[in-house]
Amino acid sequence: MTEKAARLPHVVIVGGGFGGLAAAKALAAAPVDVTLIDKRNHHLFQPLLYQVATAGLSPADIAGSIRAILARQVNVRVLLDRVYGVDQQSRRVILGDGEPLAYDWLILATGATHSYFGREDWAAFAPGVKTIDDATAIRRRILLALERAETETDEARRKALLTFVVIGGGPTGVEMAGAIAELARQSVSRDFRHITPHCSRIILLQRGDRLLPSFPHALSAKARKGIEELGVEVRLEADVTRIDNEGVVVGGERIAAQTTIWAAGVMASRVAEWLGCKGDRAGRVPVDADLHPDGDPNVFVIGDTAACTDARGRALPGVAPVAKQQGQHAARAIRAALQGHAVKPFRYRDWGNMATIGRSRAIADFGRLRVSGLPAWLLWCVAHIWFLTGHRNRVSVGLSWLWSYLTYQRGARLITGDIAPDLPATRELAPALGRKRAGAADFILMD
Amino acid sequence: MTEKAARLPHVVIVGGGFGGLAAAKALAAAPVDVTLIDKRNHHLFQPLLYQVATAGLSPADIAGSIRAILARQVNVRVLLDRVYGVDQQSRRVILGDGEPLAYDWLILATGATHSYFGREDWAAFAPGVKTIDDATAIRRRILLALERAETETDEARRKALLTFVVIGGGPTGVEMAGAIAELARQSVSRDFRHITPHCSRIILLQRGDRLLPSFPHALSAKARKGIEELGVEVRLEADVTRIDNEGVVVGGERIAAQTTIWAAGVMASRVAEWLGCKGDRAGRVPVDADLHPDGDPNVFVIGDTAACTDARGRALPGVAPVAKQQGQHAARAIRAALQGHAVKPFRYRDWGNMATIGRSRAIADFGRLRVSGLPAWLLWCVAHIWFLTGHRNRVSVGLSWLWSYLTYQRGARLITGDIAPDLPATRELAPALGRKRAGAADFILMD
Repeated sequence: MTEKAARLPHVVIVGGGFGGLAAAKALAAAPVDVTLIDKRNHHLFQPLLYQVATAGLSPADIAGSIRAILARQVNVRVLLDRVYGVDQQSRRVILGDGEPLAYDWLILATGATHSYFGREDWAAFAPGVKTIDDATAIRRRILLALERAETETDEARRKALLTFVVIGGGPTGVEMAGAIAELARQSVSRDFRHITPHCSRIILLQRGDRLLPSFPHALSAKARKGIEELGVEVRLEADVTRIDNEGVVVGGERIAAQTTIWAAGVMASRVAEWLGCKGDRAGRVPVDADLHPDGDPNVFVIGDTAACTDARGRALPGVAPVAKQQGQHAARAIRAALQGHAVKPFRYRDWGNMATIGRSRAIADFGRLRVSGLPAWLLWCVAHIWFLTGHRNRVSVGLSWLWSYLTYQRGARLITGDIAPDLPATRELAPALGRKRAGAADFILMD
Repeated sequence: MTEKAARLPHVVIVGGGFGGLAAAKALAAAPVDVTLIDKRNHHLFQPLLYQVATAGLSPADIAGSIRAILARQVNVRVLLDRVYGVDQQSRRVILGDGEPLAYDWLILATGATHSYFGREDWAAFAPGVKTIDDATAIRRRILLALERAETETDEARRKALLTFVVIGGGPTGVEMAGAIAELARQSVSRDFRHITPHCSRIILLQRGDRLLPSFPHALSAKARKGIEELGVEVRLEADVTRIDNEGVVVGGERIAAQTTIWAAGVMASRVAEWLGCKGDRAGRVPVDADLHPDGDPNVFVIGDTAACTDARGRALPGVAPVAKQQGQHAARAIRAALQGHAVKPFRYRDWGNMATIGRSRAIADFGRLRVSGLPAWLLWCVAHIWFLTGHRNRVSVGLSWLWSYLTYQRGARLITGDIAPDLPATRELAPALGRKRAGAADFILMD
């Protein structure tokens, strides 16, 4: 390996998401050495992350060790490290640890994170869902809100605890709102003594004039109907002007809510900075039809971090199939270059678009064929299990869904971390008992 | 429910572990209202926690929402709260939130945590495994050590990264050492390019003169042989005098190790403090044959937090069956008292004792019948799946084990939290490239 590494061209891939993994796999038989760098040790199946946030799945169900996924591919080396920059002149990647890494080709597939459009102060009150840690933190918030509501005696406070606001009416927002509605109104009502399905209020705020604007109007309308049937209040043209500890202000009205979730915007990773080029409004790097930024033939930018347009000039969406196809295209281009050929420009093959709303409710758009309701939901389930990485995860997710479908329960209702970080480990008992403290050293009080 | 609560006797149970849950369930048909308080929302099957720490199982596989477990039992109310003390005179429990809670009977089942025998400064370097957060933190340490070893070029540093020290030769320590050996020597070697099975060193330190002292000598010896075959170095009569950032000092010798795990001692929870009585050396509350502390007939102390002896005056071990039987006994005593009867003193029925060492290796002691090797391991697997709470967890753990058995892989190899907390989010590129910085505002450097 080390001897070969000196001779074979070196392809460096940054990011082990859909795009990076697809590129690495498509280079399996190529005469190159591949180094895949990620700052996390796992590939994450982001489309199901909202189910971790709503206690339906465990983190390990939708994530797999990148090393394990690529273990049998002998020309790949996996590196757990953080990338700080790229030096295109000397073709080197700057890492957190050790020496800069030289490349012959570089594939940048570092994805996107949520963006608060300049209101980064909102992040503390309205977390987004991009990583496993985000998802378990949101799960914690939702479950703790329900626990506190169970014992809260102040009516206004209780209402705020049982109000969940989701900001953003794209697929993530719709899926999240539907899942919270199912959790708070169906799954847990059996377990609590003082929370009935109608106690909880779930509000979905969308800035535009309809939900899921990337779908045809008819399916948008079906999604809205479906999610309203689950008990979600949908507010369109909603202008959020403030988010704080106590809720959100939308169109001048304050909504008191303990839990607010951000699903409204994404911002590409730092690749534009690394390449010293100007990103678009969402920070994405403009690429040409060969996925090169600024015409640098040794660098590819793919996936959520690339601003790529289709033949008709429309921007490609930030979805897994685009990233995968771009990863495969980059690999194909490298293989062709090694043989002295060129490849045709990248063209996205759109197989369709799906979004789920809740149990037995989904929409699917395959161009002329549009499906909704139970058939779309079954298609959605099958497709998501199919595209999951690893047989183990497929079996695990399939069984979790079957179990949830049959029992209406959620299997991962864990609150991790300290339950009551605001409470001290010990405290004086006298005030709690409404008495004067008797002895100084005694923890237990005598009358 | 609220009306009834005013009339029926009130049983308060603190702790949703094996003891507390058994007590609550055994009161299902009794004319009492039960309140179960826990500072976590989940019941944890602690005997399998080491498998979460070694990436074999997901947290949700071995934990279940206490509410969900008791959902169908209408006379139970579950409270997520922290208990600060007990006022035996006025029969009230002091909570973190809200008013003190009055009880007619109180069952204290708050368990134990790890103890460093007065060396609490060791906690930062040698974490113990008692909660899900402990387990995921240890998993993170082990997996990060392997990741860093893969790229470390300094030989001494690399050796330390691949050295894992487990302190304590009881069941937890033996199971943990065996599981780390399997993970570091078998499961992951396929995935790393520079770590072979023989690179890793796992050292099990036991203060006493044999492993698993609660088992007969012959089984202890078999366990030792089994764990040594897995590649674990066992050191008996090991006197640990120092634990720090760089490893441990044992018998004057320093062992450089990046990962040290504490499985050497437990300390009961604060119940002795709450009751104003003197705990034993491990902080446990001495109880009489009816499980009452200091003869208070309205309070029971059960499980790991009680110091209870059997008919021959031997201390009962801190294991799940003891806690469960004590919980059932307390419930039986309450039911009897309501009918004006008394119950016979508590007597522990010891069904046997098992410990697993690794794949196809375990020991089991059923008094006259002693089993080891594959039969004991199969028994261990069946018993642990049987005693898990919830069908879903049984199916999930069973399938995970089957999958691991067939593939030699671990299914939950997730590093969560920030991978490189010591690395900044951005840094200057010039020093990394070994050059002078060209422009002030430019992130990318020109030659």
